[in-house]
Amino acid sequence: MGLQLFNSLTRSKEEFKPLEEGRVGMYVCGPTVYGHAHLGHAKSYVSFDVLVRYLRYLGYNVTYVQNITDVGHLTDDADEGEDKIGKQAQREKKHPMAIAEFYARSYFADMDMLNCVRPDISPRATGHITEQIELVRTLLEKGYAYEVGGSVYFDVSKFKDYGKLSGRNVEEMIAGSRVEVSPDKKNPVDFAIWKKAEPSHIMQWPSPWGMGYPGWHLECSVMSMKYLGKTIDIHGGGLENQFPHHECEIAQSEAANEAQFVRYWLHNNMVTVDGQKMGKSLNNFITLKQAFAGEHERLKQSYEPLAVRQLILNSHYRSPLDFSDAALFAAQSGLNKITEAVKAIRKRLATAPEGPVDSETAEQLKQLTEKFEAAMNDDLNTSVALSVVFDLVRVANSVLQNGKASADTLNAINERFGRLGGDVLGVVKDEYAQSIETDEVKRYELAIDGLVELRNKARGEKNFSLADQVRDILGSAGIVLEDRPDGTTWKLG
Amino acid sequence: MGLQLFNSLTRSKEEFKPLEEGRVGMYVCGPTVYGHAHLGHAKSYVSFDVLVRYLRYLGYNVTYVQNITDVGHLTDDADEGEDKIGKQAQREKKHPMAIAEFYARSYFADMDMLNCVRPDISPRATGHITEQIELVRTLLEKGYAYEVGGSVYFDVSKFKDYGKLSGRNVEEMIAGSRVEVSPDKKNPVDFAIWKKAEPSHIMQWPSPWGMGYPGWHLECSVMSMKYLGKTIDIHGGGLENQFPHHECEIAQSEAANEAQFVRYWLHNNMVTVDGQKMGKSLNNFITLKQAFAGEHERLKQSYEPLAVRQLILNSHYRSPLDFSDAALFAAQSGLNKITEAVKAIRKRLATAPEGPVDSETAEQLKQLTEKFEAAMNDDLNTSVALSVVFDLVRVANSVLQNGKASADTLNAINERFGRLGGDVLGVVKDEYAQSIETDEVKRYELAIDGLVELRNKARGEKNFSLADQVRDILGSAGIVLEDRPDGTTWKLG
Repeated sequence: MGLQLFNSLTRSKEEFKPLEEGRVGMYVCGPTVYGHAHLGHAKSYVSFDVLVRYLRYLGYNVTYVQNITDVGHLTDDADEGEDKIGKQAQREKKHPMAIAEFYARSYFADMDMLNCVRPDISPRATGHITEQIELVRTLLEKGYAYEVGGSVYFDVSKFKDYGKLSGRNVEEMIAGSRVEVSPDKKNPVDFAIWKKAEPSHIMQWPSPWGMGYPGWHLECSVMSMKYLGKTIDIHGGGLENQFPHHECEIAQSEAANEAQFVRYWLHNNMVTVDGQKMGKSLNNFITLKQAFAGEHERLKQSYEPLAVRQLILNSHYRSPLDFSDAALFAAQSGLNKITEAVKAIRKRLATAPEGPVDSETAEQLKQLTEKFEAAMNDDLNTSVALSVVFDLVRVANSVLQNGKASADTLNAINERFGRLGGDVLGVVKDEYAQSIETDEVKRYELAIDGLVELRNKARGEKNFSLADQVRDILGSAGIVLEDRPDGTTWKLG
Repeated sequence: MGLQLFNSLTRSKEEFKPLEEGRVGMYVCGPTVYGHAHLGHAKSYVSFDVLVRYLRYLGYNVTYVQNITDVGHLTDDADEGEDKIGKQAQREKKHPMAIAEFYARSYFADMDMLNCVRPDISPRATGHITEQIELVRTLLEKGYAYEVGGSVYFDVSKFKDYGKLSGRNVEEMIAGSRVEVSPDKKNPVDFAIWKKAEPSHIMQWPSPWGMGYPGWHLECSVMSMKYLGKTIDIHGGGLENQFPHHECEIAQSEAANEAQFVRYWLHNNMVTVDGQKMGKSLNNFITLKQAFAGEHERLKQSYEPLAVRQLILNSHYRSPLDFSDAALFAAQSGLNKITEAVKAIRKRLATAPEGPVDSETAEQLKQLTEKFEAAMNDDLNTSVALSVVFDLVRVANSVLQNGKASADTLNAINERFGRLGGDVLGVVKDEYAQSIETDEVKRYELAIDGLVELRNKARGEKNFSLADQVRDILGSAGIVLEDRPDGTTWKLG
């Protein structure tokens, strides 16, 4: 059985089959760059990162597009309020593009730390104004949109499938508080695809309808279409974007293209912190930089970025994830176990005798690989997949106890760590830093201190032969002694 | 006397005065992202990086814009041939935007290694199609451009100042081989600001003149204007861009805005390798990644990125720079001297006695700062400025010989290293890695080996007291001995 994915559109697990054999076009809603990325971003982008990695593991040629929203995402999700980037720009007294630049860079730096592969294309909304204007024009021409006073709205009543993704009907949407009631709109559920800009608005562009800027939903339709075609295989995003964002994307794209927009819709669930929804007022809003540095009152220490990644993979992408210091601590401990086993295997490899793969180990690795793939094929069950990596740790530790394990056996284990724990899950690194820990250096220094003491004691006892031997041992290592009135010091010469 | 800069426009050094007091708007032509950055890029971007850093050192609020060219730069500089990005996309069988993404990322990674501060805004040509179309429209309306069959050309005969930057007259330009003779053009020196695209051309956009793409020169006019205003303080770029690129920028911008485009034009000189112009056919084309890794037949070893930076700063930005393995080796040696002195000062600080700054040192630091600023004020004489950092090394080493140097004295030296060598020149780091070198670890290991040998010898001589003492010394440092039939091994337990 091949890869099964839960498709939000059909609300069921389906066998994954791309439109074109061997190739996958995948689009994931990227961040709006007006602040540092937080734990919620990590959950979403790590989840889809593992999907991209697993598709590539399966041999697919994946084109991964993830946008950067740098205009048009208003502070109120009901299409109203100020532009989020513009508002931050006023706060920091910078050009909105400098804000977008700064936080986009911060975002990628954090994602690099989490070991997320970079998207093949990271298109920006402001980089596709021409294309967005063209789509508005098409929707107007086809009768799916109407212009009022310089703004253009999508006419939901003309698109019969509106609501098919979120399962909401128009009456429910109107009853919902998040729908803007505007005198310009024919219908309260209609949404803006182009907004007229006031002169004071910094980010604005000329259009056939006057100076304005695109509605937030528009960019994803335009950029996915431009880089992946009219029908894309996979569209990912957070559950909170299912409505209205993704519902609006479907309406725009399918109305314009008269083709299915997305074959598989995937949504990741949310993050809570200590059991509560993250929010600035609750003091439980944690950015990734804070988590990595351990600088937040909810955190007792700093954590490796890969521990955050490991914690995310411990639960299913469609389940909510509760972050807490204790959970992160546990994830860090688990990560350490994996890291230590991988390092030990690689260290032993340097001195291992040649020889074929031990047949029992080979069989174990085969079975673990099957278990891993079965878990991943089951809608990306990363927590079971991660447990397989811990099974690998057990195999590794057992093999290491055998002083004569062959190089091929060790290599086979190392290779599985690399493929399953590294290539797919991203918690095993190709290389670990060579430098030894400060802690180890301190211990060497202690030993040298003891040796110097031994020499001084020998001198005190007039055992000059021993004292000289010690000096020679140190000297051959380039360690220089200096006898001073107040004692003997040493240094690496 | 304040900062003097050599203005290519007036061919003389001028006192720098920004348009608005205390604020500087600076634009530098960025890379065309279709390949990895090479030594020539390093020379240009390190040179302007030092200018940005020095302006900030002087207290200016600098907005630094550096574009990314991701469309429209044709393989032939005379406006003809294929789009460089598009050509590379065909070669790598990827979408042009994936090519641009990949090499833009590579570029920033290399610049980070060279310790270049990131620009505040890194706008992309494809991100400003709407604005470019608007500029073409303005130039057409004002009679400075004409359309022929879907392409739009700038009419050089209408702009009387054409040639003022490069000092060329139109006759010379026609005689030059790099001017395209096209049946569409009224005049051979006219240049394309919008090009009609063939259907096979991937990167194209709708415009009032049909599907097409912008001419390369256009983006810099548009993006500098958008983010820095009609008149910018400083425009930097490589000397090879003076004509036609910068000359065309002036024509477009000044014709459209009827305002001076740039107050100070700065051009950096070129790079040669082993005395010859860099070129792929000469086997002397060296990318930064190759230089850092030492993986090029012209290089004998790898070099720190900051050694490349140091080599660039050894010569003036307006002088050609000859790269060679020997020159890089010398730069690395110089860098090592600086790094060692800074580390030694910082290490000593941990144990230095409290006390005021030594008056002789204070006077030396004051004089060195004056020498440094005088050099930088003289059109960025970085080689003299760098010599001041070596003067600081001498001051540091002399102070370090005095075992009783006060913390304030050491701090004052450290602060000058940070401000002059770090903030301005970028060759001193705020922090150096804490881990000790592999080399040092090897020496500690040698000492432990010697100690184990001493113990075994003692045991052989039935001197169990000494053998036990040694075991205890090692044990207290957490070093565990294991006696085996084939000898004694040890490990950090």
